[in-house]
Amino acid sequence: MTLQLGVIGTGAIGQDHIRRCSQTLLGSRVVAVTDINLEQAARVVSELGLDAEVYADGHALIKAAHVQALLVTSWGPSHEAFVLAAIAAGKPVFCEKPLAVTAEGCRRIVEAEIAHGRRLVQVGFMRPYDAGYQALKAVIDSGRIGEPLMLHCAHRNPRVGENYQTDMAITDTLIHELDVLRWLLADDYVSVQVLFPRTTRNAHARLRDPQIVLLETARGTRIDVEVFVNCQYGYDIQCEVVGESGIARLPEPSQVQLRSEATLSTAILMDWKDRFIAAYDVELQAFIDGVRAGQVGGPSAWDGFAAAVAADACIQAQQSGAIVPVSLPERPGFYA
Amino acid sequence: MTLQLGVIGTGAIGQDHIRRCSQTLLGSRVVAVTDINLEQAARVVSELGLDAEVYADGHALIKAAHVQALLVTSWGPSHEAFVLAAIAAGKPVFCEKPLAVTAEGCRRIVEAEIAHGRRLVQVGFMRPYDAGYQALKAVIDSGRIGEPLMLHCAHRNPRVGENYQTDMAITDTLIHELDVLRWLLADDYVSVQVLFPRTTRNAHARLRDPQIVLLETARGTRIDVEVFVNCQYGYDIQCEVVGESGIARLPEPSQVQLRSEATLSTAILMDWKDRFIAAYDVELQAFIDGVRAGQVGGPSAWDGFAAAVAADACIQAQQSGAIVPVSLPERPGFYA
Amino acid sequence: MTLQLGVIGTGAIGQDHIRRCSQTLLGSRVVAVTDINLEQAARVVSELGLDAEVYADGHALIKAAHVQALLVTSWGPSHEAFVLAAIAAGKPVFCEKPLAVTAEGCRRIVEAEIAHGRRLVQVGFMRPYDAGYQALKAVIDSGRIGEPLMLHCAHRNPRVGENYQTDMAITDTLIHELDVLRWLLADDYVSVQVLFPRTTRNAHARLRDPQIVLLETARGTRIDVEVFVNCQYGYDIQCEVVGESGIARLPEPSQVQLRSEATLSTAILMDWKDRFIAAYDVELQAFIDGVRAGQVGGPSAWDGFAAAVAADACIQAQQSGAIVPVSLPERPGFYA
Amino acid sequence: MTLQLGVIGTGAIGQDHIRRCSQTLLGSRVVAVTDINLEQAARVVSELGLDAEVYADGHALIKAAHVQALLVTSWGPSHEAFVLAAIAAGKPVFCEKPLAVTAEGCRRIVEAEIAHGRRLVQVGFMRPYDAGYQALKAVIDSGRIGEPLMLHCAHRNPRVGENYQTDMAITDTLIHELDVLRWLLADDYVSVQVLFPRTTRNAHARLRDPQIVLLETARGTRIDVEVFVNCQYGYDIQCEVVGESGIARLPEPSQVQLRSEATLSTAILMDWKDRFIAAYDVELQAFIDGVRAGQVGGPSAWDGFAAAVAADACIQAQQSGAIVPVSLPERPGFYA
Repeated sequence: MTLQLGVIGTGAIGQDHIRRCSQTLLGSRVVAVTDINLEQAARVVSELGLDAEVYADGHALIKAAHVQALLVTSWGPSHEAFVLAAIAAGKPVFCEKPLAVTAEGCRRIVEAEIAHGRRLVQVGFMRPYDAGYQALKAVIDSGRIGEPLMLHCAHRNPRVGENYQTDMAITDTLIHELDVLRWLLADDYVSVQVLFPRTTRNAHARLRDPQIVLLETARGTRIDVEVFVNCQYGYDIQCEVVGESGIARLPEPSQVQLRSEATLSTAILMDWKDRFIAAYDVELQAFIDGVRAGQVGGPSAWDGFAAAVAADACIQAQQSGAIVPVSLPERPGFYA
Repeated sequence: MTLQLGVIGTGAIGQDHIRRCSQTLLGSRVVAVTDINLEQAARVVSELGLDAEVYADGHALIKAAHVQALLVTSWGPSHEAFVLAAIAAGKPVFCEKPLAVTAEGCRRIVEAEIAHGRRLVQVGFMRPYDAGYQALKAVIDSGRIGEPLMLHCAHRNPRVGENYQTDMAITDTLIHELDVLRWLLADDYVSVQVLFPRTTRNAHARLRDPQIVLLETARGTRIDVEVFVNCQYGYDIQCEVVGESGIARLPEPSQVQLRSEATLSTAILMDWKDRFIAAYDVELQAFIDGVRAGQVGGPSAWDGFAAAVAADACIQAQQSGAIVPVSLPERPGFYA
Repeated sequence: MTLQLGVIGTGAIGQDHIRRCSQTLLGSRVVAVTDINLEQAARVVSELGLDAEVYADGHALIKAAHVQALLVTSWGPSHEAFVLAAIAAGKPVFCEKPLAVTAEGCRRIVEAEIAHGRRLVQVGFMRPYDAGYQALKAVIDSGRIGEPLMLHCAHRNPRVGENYQTDMAITDTLIHELDVLRWLLADDYVSVQVLFPRTTRNAHARLRDPQIVLLETARGTRIDVEVFVNCQYGYDIQCEVVGESGIARLPEPSQVQLRSEATLSTAILMDWKDRFIAAYDVELQAFIDGVRAGQVGGPSAWDGFAAAVAADACIQAQQSGAIVPVSLPERPGFYA
Repeated sequence: MTLQLGVIGTGAIGQDHIRRCSQTLLGSRVVAVTDINLEQAARVVSELGLDAEVYADGHALIKAAHVQALLVTSWGPSHEAFVLAAIAAGKPVFCEKPLAVTAEGCRRIVEAEIAHGRRLVQVGFMRPYDAGYQALKAVIDSGRIGEPLMLHCAHRNPRVGENYQTDMAITDTLIHELDVLRWLLADDYVSVQVLFPRTTRNAHARLRDPQIVLLETARGTRIDVEVFVNCQYGYDIQCEVVGESGIARLPEPSQVQLRSEATLSTAILMDWKDRFIAAYDVELQAFIDGVRAGQVGGPSAWDGFAAAVAADACIQAQQSGAIVPVSLPERPGFYA
């Protein structure tokens, strides 16, 4: 009854997921791994004491009979092919974001999954599994604040490396809001605009930081997201939902309150890993439980596609300075 | 040595200021009043037990020898003429907002004051006198959060009457932010844009509510102000300054913390009068002290003009949906 | 109509009150001063630009015909005689705490005032005039938290000088709680006990710090007050009222909220003068207004006596370690 | 390698732990159960779909060869005998509180365990496994607030049933503080005193509620714990540690912040199960991991004994009103 997993990609996130499945979550074990660097794959097997076979490549691993479900944690550009192969093999697949590096690629996965006839794909968007976002959604859905009219959000990192450029504010950072806010509101984006405030002195030469992304939804809700990845002070995720009769705000992480040195304070996290660490566990446990129950749920290939379409529009808006429409096709009944 | 004040306009705000000068503030007394409704003016004199003469009109009052300084609290469209007359008489004048109902009118006052040769006019913007905004400015000026890059603001009222229409979100509500944020940042606006989220069901037919106003300053700071005047839950003024290395937030009013009925709570004010009540006292005391010391300070005619120019651009932006430049002439050395 | 004040004692607090009456409050002016150090009294008159006569001693000043009311801000042991003299002269008197250095002295004042036939004395306990305590009392009196059962309080100073000894935790520090909590609860103390936790390394040799004072009231409410005068981190006054159905907590002073350096914080005051500065103004204005209206109110001689009786019991409890009864005579109808 | 557990007692808490081991935790499975009500034991096996044998009684279950470790979740008075039997059988045992219903019983377990030669017993005190208490301990141990001098604590329940009497404030409620505060401070109690404030109208006839328990530790730290089990408003656990240079406070549970109906609020939990739900998982996982690693840790039989000795003194203090010494023998090196 234990679910037999194959893992494609044994880099940092792959190792994290393998460790989760082996040491924290219930109901699965990793029986097969591969990586573009086979030595690393073998080392991970040995270091984590796995009883797992190392496969020469992802496609061989996908086909292996004892592999019942896949975790795709390889380099982004390789995701699409592996997910399509998993669908072709009829095996459930958990794919880290991005589902594909282009909206077109996501669309191909959507079409393959529809052709297959039932859901096999869960995309690795973890925020809908965060207890804070779930509590926020519960408040919205309860009607206590009325219909949502505006969202004020912020996604802040203390700092980023030299390789992080202006467009990555969308593809690496905002992408989480693009996913979780659709889920939170059960609504779709219809237009985007990007504003560039004065750039912080702490940004590298090829990065405009901070940015403000303005989103409009089909129901007319207006969202502003501050993306500020060199804010210095902390990893800080804010989300405030302004409804017709009240406002709900994403919980701050629970911390010891201190009175010392003329200051009343609580700590702010510095590392993004600490912020959503529990959500990663819940997300992957949901995948394992879903597969075992015959019902893959969570963020779907359609959600991955919708996020990709919105991200493309944001990139265009970064470049043009204009208000850019988001052209998402109608949602297929399959994903209703 | 007591400053002898003449008050033009004995409506609600006029009466408040007369009461302040008589019962709370030091160093002044009201010796002359007038109003378009002379009976009301006389009634105020009698009800408040003033030793004050009732004048037939504002111009007669301005000229009266025993009147040393003016409070203009009459109907907005009448302000410009009274302020110009006060300047012509060489008498200091505290003018409730708006300084004039058009930017052009404000400009005429600016020019008259410059021609006169020294400052006589203080405009009734009270927020720079609020202890919270002053504390916020002190933090910014201390450098603790680095250079300001973004401001996230909100101006919320529980509800407004039928006569409050879409443009009043600018002229009656946002006007306070237009003044205080210039002061807070020591910066000027260069462009504005207005977004209309889905309108709340609680708005009257001729009012689009809420609105989001986006301002850009000369130094590139980006400001978003949510104006939501039927938010139901409270009178709530928010201002968050995001700097290069930290974030400072306007204090919430100090309140008793309650634990009861499964809720940890503090009260939110419902009435705007309670929020800035102390600031009105400080503002008017500053005028009295300034006049007695021979140095009128505080929000100047230029500040009134700058706010009017920005408000005009906002109205245009409401109508066009476009990004509208704010064309403020260079600041005269007189107001440096 | 302006109230003519005589001030006995021109040390720090005396000068503060003189400045208040001259520069902040309405309705009074200082016409007479004296001090044990006459040169200092004269210097204060000149430095503050007062139009006031310097008297050779307090008794002469009390008798001076143009002095309508007194402020007694001299050395504590001299208070009783001056207050008694003021009563004998039939002049209202605001007396800084302590009303007298012994409960017996307070009692003599109470008796003299009763014999005089109407209230003349206001004791300088300022906390009942603090907006926070007033808001807390309003919540209690509203019934929102039910009947008060317990109070958890703290009175913390960053540090004290070498001259501050163990008993001053009662007479200089706790004395404020002894007054304000009686007022807050409209109840009297029936017993006290003092606990000595491990002493902080930051205390001087003759001071046991912190201390915990346990008070029981006539209605059975239990109060614990932590007195910690070398707490290092701030001047911090806490008061939490646990009622039958909820808990109300004294407001924290309103402060800018900061996010910086991995910390979400607000400032804590370091100087006691900042904490109750507004309350001093309100307190003294109330005295001036009360005298002008012919009705002295606020903390009465009886309140001063009750605080002194409780303080005596606390000192005894410090020494004995036992539970000590507080024997306050029945309240005379005069003070009902 | 999976740990084979036998569970004695299939009431509410027994079922919770069985569910935990079966559905949430890693590394164990329940292979044997028993209960005084054998039908219920059988029903639990069937309802939870366990592959487990039902034993006629606890002693038979303890001896069963396939049972590698025990969970004792039966009626309190039966704990001692089962734990002693487990020790006699050399099998690790997790025993819900109380370890025994008398201090003497706890002592017998301590002696049996010492005689056995290595730790087998973990007592079901879950608070040391709560993330909030762990964070609080980390702050204390970091030295950021200096040496702890005082603790102000509260343990509040919305309400209790008719069967909850005055002494249960100690044995059912305070017992958690008695354990966790020893752990937090790494210190032992030397005296206790109990105060009875005015009783709430919401208490039943045989219950004095609230109570205040005063504890003194060997190092002189003073602890006050308010126990209030009919507080109406919520299940609320407070712990504030006052150190020589600062104060640290147990985190409030993380909650959505709401602005609505003139109130800024967060929810307070009403059900104790929600407050420490994660701690129960962590506690039991620690037992499983400990046994599998050959090292039972966590709250020891000695900790259970120490809590029992302190509780006995508290009961005595409730009855006498006096300060009662806590006579804990010296800690055996075995538990160092």
